[in-house]
Amino acid sequence: MANAKVNKKITSFADATRVTPVPGTDDQFEATIHWDWCGGLHAHGGLTLSLVFSTVRTFFLRKYPSTPQPDPINSDIHFIQPAPRGRVILTVTELSHARRYSTVEVKLRDPAGTICTTATVIQGNLATEVGPSIAVPPVMTRDEIPDRERDCDESIRTPLLIKLMPVIMKMRVLKRKGAKTQSWSRKGAAGLNTKETWVRWEDLNQKLDVISLGVLCDNFLPAPLNFDPTMADLSKYVFPTMCMSIEIKKDPKDAEWLFQEIVCHKIQNGRYDTDVRVLDENGDLVALSKHVSIMAEMKRTKAKFRFL
Amino acid sequence: MANAKVNKKITSFADATRVTPVPGTDDQFEATIHWDWCGGLHAHGGLTLSLVFSTVRTFFLRKYPSTPQPDPINSDIHFIQPAPRGRVILTVTELSHARRYSTVEVKLRDPAGTICTTATVIQGNLATEVGPSIAVPPVMTRDEIPDRERDCDESIRTPLLIKLMPVIMKMRVLKRKGAKTQSWSRKGAAGLNTKETWVRWEDLNQKLDVISLGVLCDNFLPAPLNFDPTMADLSKYVFPTMCMSIEIKKDPKDAEWLFQEIVCHKIQNGRYDTDVRVLDENGDLVALSKHVSIMAEMKRTKAKFRFL
Repeated sequence: MANAKVNKKITSFADATRVTPVPGTDDQFEATIHWDWCGGLHAHGGLTLSLVFSTVRTFFLRKYPSTPQPDPINSDIHFIQPAPRGRVILTVTELSHARRYSTVEVKLRDPAGTICTTATVIQGNLATEVGPSIAVPPVMTRDEIPDRERDCDESIRTPLLIKLMPVIMKMRVLKRKGAKTQSWSRKGAAGLNTKETWVRWEDLNQKLDVISLGVLCDNFLPAPLNFDPTMADLSKYVFPTMCMSIEIKKDPKDAEWLFQEIVCHKIQNGRYDTDVRVLDENGDLVALSKHVSIMAEMKRTKAKFRFL
Repeated sequence: MANAKVNKKITSFADATRVTPVPGTDDQFEATIHWDWCGGLHAHGGLTLSLVFSTVRTFFLRKYPSTPQPDPINSDIHFIQPAPRGRVILTVTELSHARRYSTVEVKLRDPAGTICTTATVIQGNLATEVGPSIAVPPVMTRDEIPDRERDCDESIRTPLLIKLMPVIMKMRVLKRKGAKTQSWSRKGAAGLNTKETWVRWEDLNQKLDVISLGVLCDNFLPAPLNFDPTMADLSKYVFPTMCMSIEIKKDPKDAEWLFQEIVCHKIQNGRYDTDVRVLDENGDLVALSKHVSIMAEMKRTKAKFRFL
């Protein structure tokens, strides 16, 4: 019981993504998965990706201190097995190292040595990236982006949701006024496959930096639930993400708020995709993210990933 | 000179993606990169991905013949070093194997053993995929998709392009009537970051199957060139793709034609993205693909990838 109490301590994002080099190695890092950064009993996918970002940054800063490549320009992550609470080890393997971009693989293993997560990351430096630019039409115009005060209200999470996904308490989400449980976009009720939200950390000491984009790009309800005003499906189905990717276009530079347009193109035969476009206060594109996820009946599986 | 002549033999797509198990192994496969499936002197990215699809299919059919998982549901591929013409070896490592979806890593190595390409593939079976479906609005309505005869004309490749990219001779591309060199979308000249094309194999013996989707999703000119009516940038810049992903939503079932909507969200500081949505004759979504690519001055590099 004492342990249970200790486990309920809240951990900051900075602490949740802190990694420690394993003594005697230059490619292994230790981290801890805390209960409040979990979905169910296992590490939240977005938190895991932020942890990968932090690991790769630490690896590069230690190995190449004079030519910094701190930023995960693009990352692909595959969730192979749920990563448990507690201690995990992340191992970095260099595939290429060059002046502008380098590529590494990262494996996250549980204490038994089982690979829970594998990621491939193209690392670079957003602050020194140079080359031609061409103006293209924006994802959304400034007029299309909802005003936080005029057009939005807070998205309230049900107790069931918070129990299933403690990590969702970490971010405040504003959705368009209109539907009670659903997230609308400028397309309204006709386009429930598109959601628009403003997001910030609940912890006001934490700003939205590059490392935060892992959690941010995995901070929304499964696309099928937006078609279900009663949310009854939440206790009938599981919605695990098999893999996700993020391309970071711009350093969000410790923004307080970022905007997300979240689009699902198809929900078919128990599989669905999620495209996330992250914009800043100026409507400038910060990141593109893509998820591939599953919708499966809960009765078909005991463990979240067993049925895959 | 005799060799040069022999090298100019044309290879079918079926032959270009044929893999042979390396004797004495169950995870290694040999393949040959042919000159006509190259961009420059090196394997075309899309062909390489089709080769990965073919390798993983062969691996699964040999290892699990009674529970077939022939289809690359989702694939992420990273181009680390250019894969040379000639013999290459592909090695498959199983990360998970389950009833519905399995995950493998594939490394493509040149004869010296250098990793040229790394891919992570979620393998499954499109024909037996089951689970809930929810109708979502289509990517494009039937009315928005151009009619091949009424609205389109053939995209003509310049001799320079064919010299640089022999592989582009493999597919016939229809673009919207209008601009001479540029590919337009329904947005016309105002939306040069969006292109709409109909595509088929030139080889009428070859149909658009699942394995073809690798080449198909990498069969277009770099996004920045669509802003350049003179195509002069083609001799000033290189446009290598660092990585791409494809999620396959539906078996194209040996279609003759498929439609592509190709969108670029940002061209900034020498980096750009490409989103590809592949639709069939009925407007149904077949695949989603995403590329992360570079635009760099040619003088900065001798080899295509050196500057990365």
